[in-house]
Amino acid sequence: MSTEPDIIYVGNKPPMNYVMAVITGFNTGNTTEVTLKARGRAISTAVDVAEITRNRFFKDAKVHAISIGTEQITPREGGNPRNVSTLEITLRKE
Amino acid sequence: MSTEPDIIYVGNKPPMNYVMAVITGFNTGNTTEVTLKARGRAISTAVDVAEITRNRFFKDAKVHAISIGTEQITPREGGNPRNVSTLEITLRKE
Repeated sequence: MSTEPDIIYVGNKPPMNYVMAVITGFNTGNTTEVTLKARGRAISTAVDVAEITRNRFFKDAKVHAISIGTEQITPREGGNPRNVSTLEITLRKE
Repeated sequence: MSTEPDIIYVGNKPPMNYVMAVITGFNTGNTTEVTLKARGRAISTAVDVAEITRNRFFKDAKVHAISIGTEQITPREGGNPRNVSTLEITLRKE
């Protein structure tokens, strides 16, 4: 059984879309860890996804690690690069 | 010198307002820790505040702890309580 983490990129869809992806990640059975990654406004959604997963679907899932960071994004149309905050949450099924 | 943490509640104002509060907290000198607390959409702003503080103003400040949670909010006008996600980030000046 591999413990290589699944990574789910959280964007602007409703939280339940990503919750389903986490559930699928845990249930396909070759991983005990799922990592949520989000940037900017989607950070709040990533926290929602982690909390909904823990409170409703996998009560034995624990928040294993949380980290924050900053990425530089260069707009495709040119112009100055700007900074955007990032969040990573790793959930682990015990 | 007390190490009792300052707590800053992050809401919907621009991030720099809260960055100023963190700087004031660290500079008034009777604390080495400042904790940012946010709920719902303000969670992204709290991460921005922590990152701006660390990258621009206090390069010796470290993210000491991050935690997520859920609070139940009962609307003042009545109706069903709803869940809202919460985030806490503690910054520590070394």
